[in-house]
Amino acid sequence: MSLSKRITNLTGDGSDGWELFIRSREMIADGIDVTELTIGEHDIPTHPDILDAMHAAAKGGHTGYAMVPGTAELRDTVAARVQARTGVPTTRDNVLITPGGQAGLFATHSAACDPGDVAMYIDPYYATYPGTIRGVGAVPRAVQALADNAFQPRAADIEAAAGGAKSLLINSPNNPTGVIYGRDTLDGIADVCQRHDLWLISDEVYDTQIWEGAHISPRSLPGMADRTLVVGSMSKSHAMTGSRCGWIVGPQEAIGHLINLATHTTYGVPGFVQDAAVYALNRGETLEQEIAAPFRRRLALAKDILKAQNTVALVPAQGAMYLMLDVHATGLDGEGFANALLDTHHIAVMPGSSFGAAAARHVRVAMTIQDTCFATALQTLCAYAAQLATAASREGTARSA
Amino acid sequence: MSLSKRITNLTGDGSDGWELFIRSREMIADGIDVTELTIGEHDIPTHPDILDAMHAAAKGGHTGYAMVPGTAELRDTVAARVQARTGVPTTRDNVLITPGGQAGLFATHSAACDPGDVAMYIDPYYATYPGTIRGVGAVPRAVQALADNAFQPRAADIEAAAGGAKSLLINSPNNPTGVIYGRDTLDGIADVCQRHDLWLISDEVYDTQIWEGAHISPRSLPGMADRTLVVGSMSKSHAMTGSRCGWIVGPQEAIGHLINLATHTTYGVPGFVQDAAVYALNRGETLEQEIAAPFRRRLALAKDILKAQNTVALVPAQGAMYLMLDVHATGLDGEGFANALLDTHHIAVMPGSSFGAAAARHVRVAMTIQDTCFATALQTLCAYAAQLATAASREGTARSA
Repeated sequence: MSLSKRITNLTGDGSDGWELFIRSREMIADGIDVTELTIGEHDIPTHPDILDAMHAAAKGGHTGYAMVPGTAELRDTVAARVQARTGVPTTRDNVLITPGGQAGLFATHSAACDPGDVAMYIDPYYATYPGTIRGVGAVPRAVQALADNAFQPRAADIEAAAGGAKSLLINSPNNPTGVIYGRDTLDGIADVCQRHDLWLISDEVYDTQIWEGAHISPRSLPGMADRTLVVGSMSKSHAMTGSRCGWIVGPQEAIGHLINLATHTTYGVPGFVQDAAVYALNRGETLEQEIAAPFRRRLALAKDILKAQNTVALVPAQGAMYLMLDVHATGLDGEGFANALLDTHHIAVMPGSSFGAAAARHVRVAMTIQDTCFATALQTLCAYAAQLATAASREGTARSA
Repeated sequence: MSLSKRITNLTGDGSDGWELFIRSREMIADGIDVTELTIGEHDIPTHPDILDAMHAAAKGGHTGYAMVPGTAELRDTVAARVQARTGVPTTRDNVLITPGGQAGLFATHSAACDPGDVAMYIDPYYATYPGTIRGVGAVPRAVQALADNAFQPRAADIEAAAGGAKSLLINSPNNPTGVIYGRDTLDGIADVCQRHDLWLISDEVYDTQIWEGAHISPRSLPGMADRTLVVGSMSKSHAMTGSRCGWIVGPQEAIGHLINLATHTTYGVPGFVQDAAVYALNRGETLEQEIAAPFRRRLALAKDILKAQNTVALVPAQGAMYLMLDVHATGLDGEGFANALLDTHHIAVMPGSSFGAAAARHVRVAMTIQDTCFATALQTLCAYAAQLATAASREGTARSA
C-alpha cells in the first residue's frame, strides 16, 4: 500500500527550489515586514468588468457541466486570436480549453510521452517543468541555455541531448530570464524537432508581455504546425491567475485525444469562467496593454536604477514580468545572495538556482509590487550588492597580498 | 512524433459507451424533440445565493492564485463535515481540494499506481473509471458486481482478482445502479484491501442522496483510515456540477504528496469557487436536502408507475439520481432496448452496457427532468417494454409451437 514512485519522486531530489520563498512566507507569518519580489502574479485583482461578466453568465444559468473541450464560443475566440497573432490557420478543432496553463503542460506531456520516455526542457526553467514530466511517468532531461549566450538555447546543445527523446518544452517569453527567443533560436529548435521527430511543447503564457523585439510562436514556422502543442492562458495576459483558465492549441488529431484525456483528468472548465474569458478576450489589446503596463513601467524604473551602478548586471529583459540579475560580483552565488538579502534587508528574491543550474549566478526579481516600493527595494538590493562586492574585492586583495 | 499509447488507448477498444447519448444529442441538433434521461445532472442551476457568495468573494479580491492544497477555510470545512458524518478524526491536513471529483479520481490513481500496475474497479461503473486508470498508465481490471446479487460486489470475487493489484475503486451510493453498499459488503472489501495491501479509492460523490438505509464511508471501518482515499465533490450535493470543486480525503502523508501532484497538474482551484463552496457547505443539511428532494420525489413517482406493470424490473434504488431497470423481458438487452426506445419514442436512456458487462440487461434512467415529463416518459417506456415483451412472448410461443 505504498504510494507510487511517480508521486513520491515528483520533485526529484526532494528540493523544489522554493525554500527561500517558503522561508520568506514564514517570516511574514512571524510578523516580519518582508518585501516580496518572488511571485509571478500581478499586484492588481482581476478587472471588475470581467468578474461582472462571470457573474452574469453564472446567474444566467451557465452553472452546469460545460462541454469538456470548452465552449464553442471560447474555442472560437481563442482560435481567432491565435490565427490573428501568428498567421497559422486555426479553428476550434485545434483548441482545447484547460483549467489553467499548468493543466495544459501536464496534458501535452501526457499526450507526447509514454511512461519511461524522455522529455527535454530548457534550463533555466519554470519551477514545475521537471515535476510535470515526472508526473506523467516520463524522464526529464534538461538542456542548458547558457548565461553567456544570453540564455538563448543553442540548437547544437538540444541536438546533443535529443537521442531517444519524444518532446522538447520551451518557454518564450521566458520565465525566469525575461528573454524572448529570436528567429535564429527558433529556427534551430524547429530543425532539431523535425530531424528527431519531436513534439515541440511551447509555453507562451507571457505572449502579451513584450518589451523589446517580437514574440514568434514556433507553431508558425515552416513544418511546425503539425508537431507543436502551444500552451496559453488567461493568467498573465488578463490578471486572471486565480480563475484557472488556459488552453492547448495544436493539430486536430492531437486535440481530439487531449479532449478524451480531459474527460478523465479535469472534466472541463466552469462555463461561467469560460464566458468571462470570452468577455476579456473580446475587450482586445487595450485591456491586455493595461494589464502589462505596470511591468513595462517598472522595467524602465529598474533600468535607470541599474544604470547608476556597476555591481549587478541585468540580463536583457525583453519580455515577461521578471528581472534576471547576475550577482556574482558580490562574491556570492544567487542562492547565497538571496538568503543574505532576505536576512539583512527583509527583501525576498528568488535564487536563480530555483530555476536550474544555468542561472546559479543570478537572482530573479518579480516586478510585481507597487512602483515606489519596487524602486526602493531594487535600490536597496543594489546598494547591498555593492557593499558585498567591495568587501569581496578587499578580501580578494588581502588574500593575493 | 506519434502520440503516446496511453492517450490513444485511453478508452480501450475505442468505444466509450456513450454512442447512444451522442446519437440523442445529434437528433436534438436536427430539431427532434428528444426526452433526455441520460445525464447525471440536476435540472436546476446552482442556487443564486451560492453564486452571489462567489461573486462577493471575487469582487472582494479573491482572484489571485489560491493556495494549491485549497484554502484553509474550505479544507477545514470539508474536514469538519467528513468528521461529523463519519466519526473519523479529520483535519485540514487530510484534505486536498481538487477541481472536481474527476480530478480526484485521476490524482488518487496517480498516487496509488505506478505505470503498469493493476488497478481494480467494480463493474457496473461510472463511464470514466477505466479510462482514468489507463490515463495514469495503469492497467484496469474489472470485478463484476452481479445483478443477481443486487449489484453488491462480493469479497470473494474481488479476492480472486486482487493478485498484483495496487488499488480498488468503489462507488457507493452507486452510479449507475443506485445501490448503496451495505456493511457486510464493505467489511468484505475492507478485509480484502487489508490482506492484499491495497489502496481503497472510495468515490462518495452521491453521499447526500440516500433514499433507503444509510451510507457508510469505508474510511470509517477498522484499520481503513490509513489506506482509504475518499473522493468527494460539491457537484451532486449542491448542484454545482459546473463549478468543478471537489476534494480528496486521506492519510496526511498521501495528501502531502497529492498536494505536490496538484502543483504539477492543476495548480489549485479558483479561490472564489472555494469561497462559494464554504458558503454552500455552511448552509448545512437543509440546502442539501432541498437539492436532493426532486430525485426523492421522482423515485416515489417511478415506484408507483413501475408497480402497475410486470415487464420492467427496478433494481432497488437506495441512493443517487438514477433508476436501473432490467428490461430483458422485452427480448432485448439494454442497448437494443435503449436504441429502439430512442428511435420509436424519442426517449433517451443509457444502455446498461455503457457502464460495463454486468448491467447488459439493464438501462439507466436519470431522474433529472421535471416531474410530469419524467412520469410521462417512464410510463411510455413501460408501455413500450410491455408491447415488446408481448411480441417476444408470442414469437417464443410461435417458435416453440
